[in-house]
Amino acid sequence: MSAARIHLFDTTLRDGAQTTGVDFSLDDKRAVAGLLDRLGIDYVEGGYPGANPLDTAFFAEKPTKHAKFAAFGMTKRAGRSAANDPGIAALLEAKADAIVFVAKSWDYHVHVALEISLEDNLAGIRESVEAAKAAGREVMLDCEHFFDGYKANPDYALACARTAYEAGARWVVLCDTNGGTLPDEIGTIVAAVEKVVPGDHLGIHAHDDCGCAVANSLAAIEAGARQIQGTLNGLGERCGNANLVTLIGALKLKERYRERFALGIDEKQLGELSQVSRALDEMLNRAPNRHAPFVGASAFATKAGIHASAVLKDPRTYEHVSPEAVGNRRKVLISDQGGKSNLVAELERIGVTLGRDDPRLGRVLEEVKEKEAQGYAFEGADASFYLLAKRIMGEVPAYFEVERFKVNVERRYNALGDLVTFSEAIVKVKVGDEVLISAAEGAAGPVNALDVALRKDLGRYQSLIAGLRLVDYKVRIFQGGTDAVTRVLIESADETGERWTTVGVSANIIDASFQALVDSITYKLMRSGATG
Amino acid sequence: MSAARIHLFDTTLRDGAQTTGVDFSLDDKRAVAGLLDRLGIDYVEGGYPGANPLDTAFFAEKPTKHAKFAAFGMTKRAGRSAANDPGIAALLEAKADAIVFVAKSWDYHVHVALEISLEDNLAGIRESVEAAKAAGREVMLDCEHFFDGYKANPDYALACARTAYEAGARWVVLCDTNGGTLPDEIGTIVAAVEKVVPGDHLGIHAHDDCGCAVANSLAAIEAGARQIQGTLNGLGERCGNANLVTLIGALKLKERYRERFALGIDEKQLGELSQVSRALDEMLNRAPNRHAPFVGASAFATKAGIHASAVLKDPRTYEHVSPEAVGNRRKVLISDQGGKSNLVAELERIGVTLGRDDPRLGRVLEEVKEKEAQGYAFEGADASFYLLAKRIMGEVPAYFEVERFKVNVERRYNALGDLVTFSEAIVKVKVGDEVLISAAEGAAGPVNALDVALRKDLGRYQSLIAGLRLVDYKVRIFQGGTDAVTRVLIESADETGERWTTVGVSANIIDASFQALVDSITYKLMRSGATG
Repeated sequence: MSAARIHLFDTTLRDGAQTTGVDFSLDDKRAVAGLLDRLGIDYVEGGYPGANPLDTAFFAEKPTKHAKFAAFGMTKRAGRSAANDPGIAALLEAKADAIVFVAKSWDYHVHVALEISLEDNLAGIRESVEAAKAAGREVMLDCEHFFDGYKANPDYALACARTAYEAGARWVVLCDTNGGTLPDEIGTIVAAVEKVVPGDHLGIHAHDDCGCAVANSLAAIEAGARQIQGTLNGLGERCGNANLVTLIGALKLKERYRERFALGIDEKQLGELSQVSRALDEMLNRAPNRHAPFVGASAFATKAGIHASAVLKDPRTYEHVSPEAVGNRRKVLISDQGGKSNLVAELERIGVTLGRDDPRLGRVLEEVKEKEAQGYAFEGADASFYLLAKRIMGEVPAYFEVERFKVNVERRYNALGDLVTFSEAIVKVKVGDEVLISAAEGAAGPVNALDVALRKDLGRYQSLIAGLRLVDYKVRIFQGGTDAVTRVLIESADETGERWTTVGVSANIIDASFQALVDSITYKLMRSGATG
Repeated sequence: MSAARIHLFDTTLRDGAQTTGVDFSLDDKRAVAGLLDRLGIDYVEGGYPGANPLDTAFFAEKPTKHAKFAAFGMTKRAGRSAANDPGIAALLEAKADAIVFVAKSWDYHVHVALEISLEDNLAGIRESVEAAKAAGREVMLDCEHFFDGYKANPDYALACARTAYEAGARWVVLCDTNGGTLPDEIGTIVAAVEKVVPGDHLGIHAHDDCGCAVANSLAAIEAGARQIQGTLNGLGERCGNANLVTLIGALKLKERYRERFALGIDEKQLGELSQVSRALDEMLNRAPNRHAPFVGASAFATKAGIHASAVLKDPRTYEHVSPEAVGNRRKVLISDQGGKSNLVAELERIGVTLGRDDPRLGRVLEEVKEKEAQGYAFEGADASFYLLAKRIMGEVPAYFEVERFKVNVERRYNALGDLVTFSEAIVKVKVGDEVLISAAEGAAGPVNALDVALRKDLGRYQSLIAGLRLVDYKVRIFQGGTDAVTRVLIESADETGERWTTVGVSANIIDASFQALVDSITYKLMRSGATG
């Protein structure tokens, strides 16, 4: 019996975007769509064109090569025809392969929230689906609050589902909108819906309000549904959406699933899973969840003595799947052996070749461990990692030395009586035998001032760093032991458009920024082949 | 039919203690045991006496009044009698009501990890349980890797369970040690075990490596088990243990469960659930999970326009349970989709009453929209939002005015030849007719220096802010149009333990921090009833 194809539908950019503190810019949306496309996701729901200008702009052009691009919106307003509904017009204007309509399927909502008749709601579903289908789109219906609706009035909920299916919808998605349904209920209800909509036209959209979103999604496909909606890292308002990263890991790797269910994701794409997860967190400047299944930094990290030695004897004794399959690493925190092999591979990846038996490898490992204990994170800061290794190999020339810097931020009344804040920096640098002092103002604050001053005059290296600029700056403050530690990540670019990221850590944010800036300049000089 | 009693077993202090970065002191352990006891947990597993001095000391005295105190350890070593086993001796010395033995139940482990015969392993289980029972303790057996063991060799796994039960164990706990088992498998296997051990003697110990720990725990009790093991906030190594906070919320509040299952937790204790969850995070200095089911800060927070107005009409339309039952709050967030209805409700929530027709309401809405367009976010910054409204209402006294501040960060060689970075701040403040100038150094950087200087001398208000301290500081940098904008969130606390959050936005991080600090002090003064 061949495996059943499960379609993955990502709503990070629509439902996920409703998370507190999450704001995707247009560039962010394009980047996420690219990540999802390369990962092998089947549908990317880009947003709600017509509802806000950013989403309307995002739908001016399809951002994916393989994944279908889906636009979300509401069924037609009561009292209007589908042809005269501005919401539907906006959806049809969008450059989307698929249109996802959301509709009420709980009679209580139809009465209280919409204040229309049950029949009118069904007509709205039918006419909206027909209009989108007539315009050549793949159509889906998200049945809002489906499970509560089914429990309250099963006939009406089923009528909504059947109406959409009969009107030509490719998918009817059963949404557990408030996340309050439990796994065994999901199974029973999905089986009931299959009397009116075949399983291969059914999708599940779960939320994590009871901590069961993943289990609910799995229960639905066990019961015959074939589409799972979720988000990267379970992003979403309240307690989040079903975590597609967890679901991909489970469906691809668990013996229980991999024979029976097939995804549009191959082994190579699966190997990128950890990076995709981290990329989203970095973009949103969210601390990654160390404990995330499959891809979390600690997902395979064992501390207990009784486990650790057994893991090394035979990982199968303790790990349920292999971490490398999802691009994660096994971290056995009290042993070096796993460490060296990983390290050789990581260094190779960034262009540094050190053999396993090279004594310098051990010193690099020690340095990485020590720095990580202080709060450094080299994932995502390849240029600083490169310099760390090269410094131990004695291959970083002494280009310049910052003998002193001073950064001021001052807020006072200016001559016009306005309260203004300004920043300035002085940097004293030794380049060979020359001592250079530079000063700069920073309209964008003290780090800006320091950056400009550092790069203002580096003597004989000045031409090599002329095109260097700071393009992104991320700050994270966390507890490193008893004190707060600031970690700064700086992304730089040069005149060729090449980009690299460096990291700095200190209790002091200016100091952390300074380290990252110095690493950035040093890296650029090394890549330019400058001699010390 | 009466409800089945479910016993909750907390292993925060044993399994949870194995989490990376978690170290409980003796005082911490006592505090957590107290929290669990007052919450109504049935068993508190305190640790592994004999394995380390801290745990041995913790078991010198029972720390709970109602909860049973449980000690964890291994079954007897092969080749020794139970009477001559030092591990068992340590367990029997502990002042514990219950002893929990962990034993292998997967034949592969017995061979590879223990290197003994299957029979010897059963004998070890039998004799250990008998020894503890003879000493008057309640005895439990944790069957390690039970589900994998059952799949590999069902007869042997069942034999381990039966042996313990027949030797007098009160509970046989089926452990999904590597977290790789899925909910439907759990149900099937638990049902099979009930052929040799009655359900009311069975427990479940799940891990979250597939994101299914909560669902697995629920599946087990649906299948007849009556004890659930887990930790507060799902604390635990790798992906964590089953989250008891989520399980308590679900079992007490979901209609599906509350008739059929009873916990030892009453409604009043349930109302403390959010506080218990936060108390553990504070103790471990871990950022609380905003998205945690039931108790997370965002668990009931809705941003989307289509949801918000419906929630206010009738919360039942969108919430699966009532937040107040677990000591949480409903938050309808301010966003640029928010209208006047949202705003009135939000203001009410933070203690500001403005009628829908009050002209000032419109001005507050305008101010919020304008500030949000500049990059402010008032979600999670209630104190700044409160001040914004109160300023428009003309109800914020002119307590103090910062005429000038200056912050320096300097890095240079000190007298010993070391390169050091230090920060200092000068602040000039006008309080009534007094002009005060204060200076401070900041070991933790420029914002620290500015904060200390600002609070050093506020004249007649100084006593009111004496207990004020900065407890958390978050920075986010993002694109606000063409320029980068820095948003700072500062959480402050006072001597009563009350906490509030303020926000500041600027291109300049020091300036943004300054705004948030000034708001924090002003808020504190207002709450203290200080007059201008």
